[in-house]
Amino acid sequence: MIPLDFKKASGLITTVIQDATTKQVLMVAYMNAESLEKTMTTGETWFWSRSRNMLWHKGETSGNTQTVQAIAVDCDADTLLITVNPAGPACHTGHTSCFYRQYTERKGTQ
Amino acid sequence: MIPLDFKKASGLITTVIQDATTKQVLMVAYMNAESLEKTMTTGETWFWSRSRNMLWHKGETSGNTQTVQAIAVDCDADTLLITVNPAGPACHTGHTSCFYRQYTERKGTQ
Repeated sequence: MIPLDFKKASGLITTVIQDATTKQVLMVAYMNAESLEKTMTTGETWFWSRSRNMLWHKGETSGNTQTVQAIAVDCDADTLLITVNPAGPACHTGHTSCFYRQYTERKGTQ
Repeated sequence: MIPLDFKKASGLITTVIQDATTKQVLMVAYMNAESLEKTMTTGETWFWSRSRNMLWHKGETSGNTQTVQAIAVDCDADTLLITVNPAGPACHTGHTSCFYRQYTERKGTQ
């Protein structure tokens, strides 16, 4: 394993989730050491929820789990890129990706 | 414009950079309000360097600038996804993407 720099971001590693087939970027979430270990052992994504301050198995309530295809690490070892096969939309709004709005859109047009 | 939540991450917005053509995720960096404004006005990516604590025009020294194609914002408005046309490799190591290693590789094998 490549040692990760959990210290830089207060114990959390920024994690980009990308669809393995379409290459669409689905979401960005955060992992602590425990959620990464859960992700490795279960083959599904687990994160650390910063808003709820708890371990979060993606899709546990919605059913929209993400099966891990590969885990890449960036050059300074503080960010992960995980390619997944998603069972459903990544976003809680029902959109395939959380990035469903262009920044220059007016607020509330979608 | 969709108002961004700069407060959540100490004034910095996590920004994913994706190649507009290949869909490869190239890097993750951080933007403050000023770097986002510079990115919008110049059409090239500017970030906030957390290690150097300064504004950073991507490619300023290497020549590997990134021309912005589109800027998307995620559902809770604290993360950006910017698709770009890169003039060269994104990574300072010379790799196209900063995510050139698999996490499960042994350290130092590449």
